[in-house]
Amino acid sequence: MSIVMKPKATKAEVDEVIQKVKSTGLKVDVSSGEYQTVIGIIGDEKKVDFDQIKAMSGVSDAIRIQSAYRLVSRGYIPKDVKVKVGTVSIGGDEPPVYISGPCSIESYEQLYRIAKEVKEAGAHILRGGAFKPRTSVHSFQGLGIEGLKHLKAVSKDLDMPTITEIRSEMDVDTVAKYTDVLQIGARNMFNQDLIEAAAKTGMPIFFKRGFGAQIDEYLSFAERIVAKNNRKIILCERGILPLGGSFKPATRYTLDLNAIPAIRKETPFPIFGDPSHGTGRRDLVLPMARASIAAGAHGVMVEVHDRPQEALSDGPQAVLPDELRQIIKVCDKIYETINQSESA
Amino acid sequence: MSIVMKPKATKAEVDEVIQKVKSTGLKVDVSSGEYQTVIGIIGDEKKVDFDQIKAMSGVSDAIRIQSAYRLVSRGYIPKDVKVKVGTVSIGGDEPPVYISGPCSIESYEQLYRIAKEVKEAGAHILRGGAFKPRTSVHSFQGLGIEGLKHLKAVSKDLDMPTITEIRSEMDVDTVAKYTDVLQIGARNMFNQDLIEAAAKTGMPIFFKRGFGAQIDEYLSFAERIVAKNNRKIILCERGILPLGGSFKPATRYTLDLNAIPAIRKETPFPIFGDPSHGTGRRDLVLPMARASIAAGAHGVMVEVHDRPQEALSDGPQAVLPDELRQIIKVCDKIYETINQSESA
Amino acid sequence: MSIVMKPKATKAEVDEVIQKVKSTGLKVDVSSGEYQTVIGIIGDEKKVDFDQIKAMSGVSDAIRIQSAYRLVSRGYIPKDVKVKVGTVSIGGDEPPVYISGPCSIESYEQLYRIAKEVKEAGAHILRGGAFKPRTSVHSFQGLGIEGLKHLKAVSKDLDMPTITEIRSEMDVDTVAKYTDVLQIGARNMFNQDLIEAAAKTGMPIFFKRGFGAQIDEYLSFAERIVAKNNRKIILCERGILPLGGSFKPATRYTLDLNAIPAIRKETPFPIFGDPSHGTGRRDLVLPMARASIAAGAHGVMVEVHDRPQEALSDGPQAVLPDELRQIIKVCDKIYETINQSESA
Amino acid sequence: MSIVMKPKATKAEVDEVIQKVKSTGLKVDVSSGEYQTVIGIIGDEKKVDFDQIKAMSGVSDAIRIQSAYRLVSRGYIPKDVKVKVGTVSIGGDEPPVYISGPCSIESYEQLYRIAKEVKEAGAHILRGGAFKPRTSVHSFQGLGIEGLKHLKAVSKDLDMPTITEIRSEMDVDTVAKYTDVLQIGARNMFNQDLIEAAAKTGMPIFFKRGFGAQIDEYLSFAERIVAKNNRKIILCERGILPLGGSFKPATRYTLDLNAIPAIRKETPFPIFGDPSHGTGRRDLVLPMARASIAAGAHGVMVEVHDRPQEALSDGPQAVLPDELRQIIKVCDKIYETINQSESA
Repeated sequence: MSIVMKPKATKAEVDEVIQKVKSTGLKVDVSSGEYQTVIGIIGDEKKVDFDQIKAMSGVSDAIRIQSAYRLVSRGYIPKDVKVKVGTVSIGGDEPPVYISGPCSIESYEQLYRIAKEVKEAGAHILRGGAFKPRTSVHSFQGLGIEGLKHLKAVSKDLDMPTITEIRSEMDVDTVAKYTDVLQIGARNMFNQDLIEAAAKTGMPIFFKRGFGAQIDEYLSFAERIVAKNNRKIILCERGILPLGGSFKPATRYTLDLNAIPAIRKETPFPIFGDPSHGTGRRDLVLPMARASIAAGAHGVMVEVHDRPQEALSDGPQAVLPDELRQIIKVCDKIYETINQSESA
Repeated sequence: MSIVMKPKATKAEVDEVIQKVKSTGLKVDVSSGEYQTVIGIIGDEKKVDFDQIKAMSGVSDAIRIQSAYRLVSRGYIPKDVKVKVGTVSIGGDEPPVYISGPCSIESYEQLYRIAKEVKEAGAHILRGGAFKPRTSVHSFQGLGIEGLKHLKAVSKDLDMPTITEIRSEMDVDTVAKYTDVLQIGARNMFNQDLIEAAAKTGMPIFFKRGFGAQIDEYLSFAERIVAKNNRKIILCERGILPLGGSFKPATRYTLDLNAIPAIRKETPFPIFGDPSHGTGRRDLVLPMARASIAAGAHGVMVEVHDRPQEALSDGPQAVLPDELRQIIKVCDKIYETINQSESA
Repeated sequence: MSIVMKPKATKAEVDEVIQKVKSTGLKVDVSSGEYQTVIGIIGDEKKVDFDQIKAMSGVSDAIRIQSAYRLVSRGYIPKDVKVKVGTVSIGGDEPPVYISGPCSIESYEQLYRIAKEVKEAGAHILRGGAFKPRTSVHSFQGLGIEGLKHLKAVSKDLDMPTITEIRSEMDVDTVAKYTDVLQIGARNMFNQDLIEAAAKTGMPIFFKRGFGAQIDEYLSFAERIVAKNNRKIILCERGILPLGGSFKPATRYTLDLNAIPAIRKETPFPIFGDPSHGTGRRDLVLPMARASIAAGAHGVMVEVHDRPQEALSDGPQAVLPDELRQIIKVCDKIYETINQSESA
Repeated sequence: MSIVMKPKATKAEVDEVIQKVKSTGLKVDVSSGEYQTVIGIIGDEKKVDFDQIKAMSGVSDAIRIQSAYRLVSRGYIPKDVKVKVGTVSIGGDEPPVYISGPCSIESYEQLYRIAKEVKEAGAHILRGGAFKPRTSVHSFQGLGIEGLKHLKAVSKDLDMPTITEIRSEMDVDTVAKYTDVLQIGARNMFNQDLIEAAAKTGMPIFFKRGFGAQIDEYLSFAERIVAKNNRKIILCERGILPLGGSFKPATRYTLDLNAIPAIRKETPFPIFGDPSHGTGRRDLVLPMARASIAAGAHGVMVEVHDRPQEALSDGPQAVLPDELRQIIKVCDKIYETINQSESA
């Protein structure tokens, strides 16, 4: 931490700050310039209360030097982490993994029909929502337990691992019985109690970035999963708030692909792209899936529906099974191209 | 809803959309222009699935005409709603209400000491956090139940109603026993299960806007409270994400005062300003509290600490008790000025 | 500047950075912690090329300690600057100044009619656009020189100083002949050549914040005016980009009132609020004008039209002359209230 | 345009709106629902003044159905436009084009040295800035005319076409003599006078998206180029404002790759990605260049410097010549992969 004193800070104020830091057992390094005094902290800055320092008299600013997280950083876990889901291995140097299926589970028949198609198209893991987070109380909120039963049944009938979103702490134990991966959605990225409850199951957690969260903040919440001794984390960029303005944005969210390589540099955990939620437009899913893989994603999540105009949620962004086949084919080739180029 | 067809949409595609709308019992109005066909829906557009329409072939866009919420709108409840907390009446033409106290409850003594000061300064309701939402797992997370006990005790000893944040669905029944108002914080604005659990207690809900939520979205989630037959809603603007860019923003969040008059026009419920979280800077709390009341807020929430440099959370934005006294005095006068001007 | 080295930076890399800094004549202060080395710069950090340092091998980050501007800071000019426009004095402890008039000058008659009304309502300076920045090439672009002639004539006939926007460097000398204040609009905040050309006239510059600019960036561009030896700067907050999202924002821009007190602390120059452009909604102009003054603005700019539905630009945000009268009356009283409270 | 009347609008108000629309020669379609009346406009909605309608009494909202631009749309120019620069053909089904070189021209030697490297690496067009837009008046502002002379000389000596940024209307004729393509930078995207002056030269215009502009707004300003009878437009996504928040963003801007396929669907002009400015980080340029091409970009612009730590501007984002070679190689292969997949 660099503590920047105000130009007019008194010696007494400077001394009080130094005293405060030293009281935690840390050392300081003071540089008194022509313009202002800067107090550097030597040692683990997490031991000092950042806000208390900023609240002290004479302090102009306190600047973090170390990142806000540690357990999810490459400093702590240097090597790429691979997460196993059934027989599927995700992350590191593994080829791309495809998670696909409908937004909502609507019936056994609907789920089976679509699951069969996505499996044939090359998808590895089946997605389907039973507890849907929705803006409007008047929209379809998911089939709940009934949906989970369909998910489990289809998983068995097609021999395909599954992922489903968990929306409430109350449901963690129940949902855990019916699926292989627990998804924490974008709207719950800041929900620390839900994250910790899910982490405690020891199951793989598919943890989406919030649409209003910066990367440091996102990884700080992922830190809570490792803090519960669970390293089975799969990260996912799914779109941030679009730029506001007088004009309607072209996409519902802005899929922030910069996050993919930036996160890979910071953390050893796998990271996915979600072009379906990230754009909200079916016609952009293919190019943005390609771009996700080209940016370095370990996989993509794609919503598929065979009858989008009848989907009970997210129809406008669902692609048809044939489009998924095309996506998987070209993404696999892009991955190979990059792989060869990097090992060349 | 206005359904805008693509310029090259076929007659069959147009007909299919019309059929879909009619199947819900609604009427349509078709206008075929030189450039494209627009299909208007006559009746309650909530009966049509917006996403299904957008997912249909030949559809370019579907535009909502009605707002996404109804139960919290002035169309449904025309007259200002006043919310009673103990003997305090909030909203409508009532003079400003001040909610104040420390960010976190640190001990009975700390809370009593500060509570006494804020009461003497003119605050009506005491705030204090026991379950703190924090970014870092390494920060102070609140005293939990022990904190709630202090809150209840101080409330009784000083005869002052209280408000505290509820972070998890699991705690609703417990927290409800110790306080007069349940606060749902910005990070939980999208947490529909928590909102509904809190609403079902029948207690007043202090419902903060999320930092990444637009007003329509915010009111859509408030709708869930009324849907559970609870009309004791107090809204609160507490700052949205600041503009990003190459430079460090001047304030931690952007207190969006435009929201105050905009929300008052839409909904009959009281709306507060929170200049402490909204700016994150002690030196901006006074001017932004004044501006909140001038914009039409029914009250302000202000964090106070008598020793900010020792506060276990949010020290940099806490004002001293004396500053609170000054805030309340000038805000009351601004309210009177506006009131006289409007009745003139 | 604090230069943060990567955890694995070599001694040679650290030395090279130190050498680079010393070569500019500045001193360094090196603190080698357990985690990483931080190199502090003692002296005027503007002498070091920030980007060159960041581009060096082994450097993780370079953090500015000093602000990006100096000439407009209170460190350089401690006392409030008052700007004179005709007999009107703006800034410091002067009571609020009102700038008002139509968005566009449409004819001598239109301008005279509205100017007379706004003068009677209490406005001090008349605004009217002749060169309009417009998004669409198909919209009305202003009357140009003809409009300026009307402005000059009305100014004389009503004895009222004027302000008008300058859009192009080519027009600086011409526009300067017809008005008392040159306005640089939000879209030109980054247009350094236009800013410098305007500054060189020595006339007062009404310099609006860009809708995509942070405060540091805004003041860095204002710095260019002082660098041309012109201290007649009036700043103006006119709305930043609204938060994006799935829902339509309630206001066209977000009037960022946090900027008012934040800027007053940084710089001695007067700062205005522009609730007309800041919200884009006539019904929000009154409350947001009040809030601007309550936040500490030295004045407000308000667009007025007597027939908004016939205005050639910005009709939806223009208030009627009677509303302006009401705005000025209540804003004056709020100013007095604050003034008395602060001197109490 | 769909004009939505307020629920309580009177018949007189509705009639007045209808009258206003009809007075422009357009037809209306009125649908009176249970909740409110919606007036649709049949014909070219650009003939009606959007703002005047919104300013009318009883009007709740006016919603554009047609886009804000026409001349740059595929409705007006259906087929892909290819832009020729020397012997290089850009856009449509042409393979990717690479524009590369230093941020600033620092001397003939520096430019020649780097130009030779980028040409050998496979770049087609040489970039180099002589008039630099800078935030700080204290930074290097470019060599001006002297720089342009170096650009022209190197262009001739290496037989390589060039592009350079034009910052001021005053310089258009001069700059046009020294280069093959005129660049309008992000900060000037809203500078309509500069855009039109550049367009009138008839030269190819490399027109960057503003960091605060939505796509509709961006294309509305590109419209001004076609309106001056110049169809030699190359668009470029170069990063939008990053999400703001309590944490430092990971990248200086957010390269918005969603814009690439979204813009390709709207307009026939070529679109580039600029991963150097889009991220501001050298280590992200390669993955984001790959992702640009995978998203469908017709080329990328990459800043190169052989001694980034001595660059007079933008050193932190400049890649070395060797990295450019690697970028071009892998991007060409990704393009081929996509091309084969689409023609399969």
